[in-house]
Amino acid sequence: MGKIAHDQHLPAIAGNADIELAATVSRSGESVNGLPFFRNVEELAASDVTVDAVALCTPPQVRHAIAMFCIEQGWHVFMEKPPGATLAEVAALDEAAKAKGVSLFASWHSRYADGVEPARAWLADRTVTAATITWREDVRVWHPGQDWIWEPGGFGVFDPGINALSIATRILPKPFFVETAELDVPSNRAAPIAARVAFRDTAGTAIDIDLDFRQEGPQHWDIEVRTDAGTLLLSKGGSVLTIDGKEALSHDGDLHGEYPGLYARFAEIVRAGESDVDVSPLRLVADAFLRGRHVTVEPFVE
Amino acid sequence: MGKIAHDQHLPAIAGNADIELAATVSRSGESVNGLPFFRNVEELAASDVTVDAVALCTPPQVRHAIAMFCIEQGWHVFMEKPPGATLAEVAALDEAAKAKGVSLFASWHSRYADGVEPARAWLADRTVTAATITWREDVRVWHPGQDWIWEPGGFGVFDPGINALSIATRILPKPFFVETAELDVPSNRAAPIAARVAFRDTAGTAIDIDLDFRQEGPQHWDIEVRTDAGTLLLSKGGSVLTIDGKEALSHDGDLHGEYPGLYARFAEIVRAGESDVDVSPLRLVADAFLRGRHVTVEPFVE
Repeated sequence: MGKIAHDQHLPAIAGNADIELAATVSRSGESVNGLPFFRNVEELAASDVTVDAVALCTPPQVRHAIAMFCIEQGWHVFMEKPPGATLAEVAALDEAAKAKGVSLFASWHSRYADGVEPARAWLADRTVTAATITWREDVRVWHPGQDWIWEPGGFGVFDPGINALSIATRILPKPFFVETAELDVPSNRAAPIAARVAFRDTAGTAIDIDLDFRQEGPQHWDIEVRTDAGTLLLSKGGSVLTIDGKEALSHDGDLHGEYPGLYARFAEIVRAGESDVDVSPLRLVADAFLRGRHVTVEPFVE
Repeated sequence: MGKIAHDQHLPAIAGNADIELAATVSRSGESVNGLPFFRNVEELAASDVTVDAVALCTPPQVRHAIAMFCIEQGWHVFMEKPPGATLAEVAALDEAAKAKGVSLFASWHSRYADGVEPARAWLADRTVTAATITWREDVRVWHPGQDWIWEPGGFGVFDPGINALSIATRILPKPFFVETAELDVPSNRAAPIAARVAFRDTAGTAIDIDLDFRQEGPQHWDIEVRTDAGTLLLSKGGSVLTIDGKEALSHDGDLHGEYPGLYARFAEIVRAGESDVDVSPLRLVADAFLRGRHVTVEPFVE
């Protein structure tokens, strides 16, 4: 029951007629609307509260053990992004869910931003000549007190950066991979505060990403894609779409459409008896760490 | 035509009746037995030499572009380990090979050491209670002048360490994943000289790996697996197998069986029209970098 649970999950669940909130689980023992609450999933399982599904909103480092327990109970599992702190643990969850016959949803909320599907459709039959991703935000504003983000497995600036990659892997017509990466790691932290990654797609097209957690003033969450038929700009985290500078779609930028979209998708895969586990954004982040050069930069003090 | 091509590939090819050496490709323009030679694969493709297949023995950082070119020529491709410097590029090669109808072989030579299949068979119906992997070798002896190993994508001590992981992923009965990792990186290098990784399998069993490139004196390439029915020790890189201290299989430790085994497998998948691309060892290494804490250690000077 952290920031994202309150800001996004509770309103999205309240707005979805297919889903009813049965209980909450939080170390702090927080109740919502007088509903039953538990301090961990073991207490929930031992209670007389019946649940069909759980949404896990913890930091990635502790997600695997909780998710595995929930799958073993026969509960469908919705995982916040990123789906885990490593790729192999997500593969193990995927296999366990299949063996148990429950649905596993590795969610990528940014893919449900309003501009993403129109951007994907527009790019599908264009030839991309270059793409630039700029994701620069102020960590003090967006991740106040979130120490886990600076620990190994918290990914640092790749925590928001993976949102950009979840969009890019969805809208760009060809797969792409890391060629070089530079990760700026504060001398007092274990995860990068900034990163520059040069990707190339299978047609040889350059795709560059510039991530920075130190952005003051205007914040940037932009993906610019140049093509043989004009330039597409997806801005404000995927909610605003322009083509050659003309608005193709505009929303208020509050991204209120993302989490309702995720919960609609979750209900859909549960009904269909399927899982939805696309690890490609996490794989690109792992590749950036594997292939990247670490650069030690000045300490970060919140 | 580097060290591994001379030490292992040429003898293995010479000993395989299904495979005939047609030409060599090397920046240095080295010929073997008076056969045609070329400085790059583009020159080979433009020549009148007909080849069905290529074995790529380059460092991982340059492998993708060469492999993609070879797949586009319709050649079957054998890749030395590791199959690439990133996971996404290997996935792209796998897709390209399937689309072109050629066989792609991501080889793991240590899996063909003589003790590996007997170890796998013995462990298959045992319950593992703990496993310890110790891979400590002297980089000055085994990788003289190989500067690429210290660059991003060269993986440092994980270059031999991935051999251990290729065996462990083959013989251990359950999948396992990284829980914590510490990577010791020399202050003048980009890749780790030593690493300690704590894995856990899906049954909760601890699997620990200790990698060190600074080992003088006796060298260690050992995997010890404790089970409910005794302790298995696979030593000398997989060639010597003991169970509860009694020799279950012994060879001379020269590992001459590995590369002939790889080439027999390559011929087999080409005949069958299949690929063999298991990325799980590389995925564990990527996860160790993703989840790992970097520790700066004293400079390494060769």
